[in-house]
Amino acid sequence: MTQVTEATQATVGDSEFDRDTAVTRRDEGVYDIDLSAGWTIISAVNGGYLLAVLGRALADALPHSDPFTISAHYLTASRPGPAVIRTDVVRTGRTLSTGQASLFQYDEDGHEVERIRVLASYGDLDSLPDDVRTTAQPPVFPPMEDCFGPQDGPTPVSGSSAITERLMLKLDPSTLGWALGAPSGKGEMRAWFGLADGRDADPLSLLLAVDALPPTAFELGISGWVPTVELTVHVRSRPAPGPLRVSITTRNLAGGFLEEDAEVWDSADRLVAQSRQLARVRLG
Amino acid sequence: MTQVTEATQATVGDSEFDRDTAVTRRDEGVYDIDLSAGWTIISAVNGGYLLAVLGRALADALPHSDPFTISAHYLTASRPGPAVIRTDVVRTGRTLSTGQASLFQYDEDGHEVERIRVLASYGDLDSLPDDVRTTAQPPVFPPMEDCFGPQDGPTPVSGSSAITERLMLKLDPSTLGWALGAPSGKGEMRAWFGLADGRDADPLSLLLAVDALPPTAFELGISGWVPTVELTVHVRSRPAPGPLRVSITTRNLAGGFLEEDAEVWDSADRLVAQSRQLARVRLG
Repeated sequence: MTQVTEATQATVGDSEFDRDTAVTRRDEGVYDIDLSAGWTIISAVNGGYLLAVLGRALADALPHSDPFTISAHYLTASRPGPAVIRTDVVRTGRTLSTGQASLFQYDEDGHEVERIRVLASYGDLDSLPDDVRTTAQPPVFPPMEDCFGPQDGPTPVSGSSAITERLMLKLDPSTLGWALGAPSGKGEMRAWFGLADGRDADPLSLLLAVDALPPTAFELGISGWVPTVELTVHVRSRPAPGPLRVSITTRNLAGGFLEEDAEVWDSADRLVAQSRQLARVRLG
Repeated sequence: MTQVTEATQATVGDSEFDRDTAVTRRDEGVYDIDLSAGWTIISAVNGGYLLAVLGRALADALPHSDPFTISAHYLTASRPGPAVIRTDVVRTGRTLSTGQASLFQYDEDGHEVERIRVLASYGDLDSLPDDVRTTAQPPVFPPMEDCFGPQDGPTPVSGSSAITERLMLKLDPSTLGWALGAPSGKGEMRAWFGLADGRDADPLSLLLAVDALPPTAFELGISGWVPTVELTVHVRSRPAPGPLRVSITTRNLAGGFLEEDAEVWDSADRLVAQSRQLARVRLG
């Protein structure tokens, strides 16, 4: 018997992303969370998901709710499972407040091991004036139906599927050479991005969006792991409903490190987030 | 009587910049410094100079000496005079170690007021492999003799001269429209950069170089103050001797904020540092 299911779109506050980033306040400034296995690639928990978790804790701890600029240094590899976040209010001001947060997990002896430390300044995106004098232009993209996602491949990559099931990711074919064994040699990656359950973007999910595409290193002919050392995100505007376009570029692969610069554009052609990360290249 | 003075070039370790960023260890991880009035613009202490001061304290506190990635959140305005830096070793590893540092000054009652908080990962630039696969090209620049510095102007700006006496700054005339009342409308600023006493660049002085040019906002027709909220610098290579070229671009001026992306190129045409800052635009 075929069951007809109505496509219900998840909403902000009631979605996989919201449930998996929800933190429980244990004490003032201290939060518990169970890191979901749903946002892993192979066995690594996605760095953007982790940043969103920390971002949510800071939104509770600070008087302002929107991350304007958030910098994370990744210390040790996080695993799915219990974690505790400790926050510290550094300064509160009228338009901006600054906080710090660390995420810890536990070793075999139950001792806390720090995974990530974050420094962030928060504000209220809705209070900003409407002036836009940007010179940036949206990236040139084929329409979504001419782009390709992990589900369109002949065989899913073993063990890598958890996060791809939660994302709507459609890659620009001109940045997909690596998947066909013919990387372009250009440090570019572009994709349409959304959450698989249809939840619209908000400032917190932008922290995920900047780190959810395959690494630009793949198009530079590098197939190994590219762990993030540091990731800074600027959220510049509240995103409009609808799919996002994410464009990532690398200009400088040298000395075993590279930078990845991401721009996130919303459906209203507004540049809603910019990020830069420093990552290590593990030739393997 | 005319005294013939031989032009002596200051060296790394023995220069104005080194003396003015020198920190004195008071206790384990705690450093004193007297912030120099020599690095101010109007009455504000330059943010790059402050970052170099914090960077020097962290180089002492951590087992590695070179900042690979350093993120600073600027909390309150620093003034020339005494300050204390408190550092915290977050994690030490074989190739990278991570630390945190805060700079404090004192209010009228002698209480500590936090000025800046920094999170950074340090390593050893000399240990990196030589591979360079960068796609970035050096900025196109007129030769130094066709560029203009603050000393070339008809009248120095009142009160703004302290830092300019310590820098060798020669601006690309195509980014100097603002000084003639005709800003280009493009968010670009380019300059030859060095220290006035001839000291060559090192990783610490790169932290100054990324924040030493006039703000790109001037070329966007904004004449007010553009205070930094957050500044992240990636040092990618030890700079070769000789003048640096610094190229700064702004793509997104919106909602009262803008980003400034700096690239620093050395005399060997190597991209030695990249930075991004989020700054507020104070119209007025």
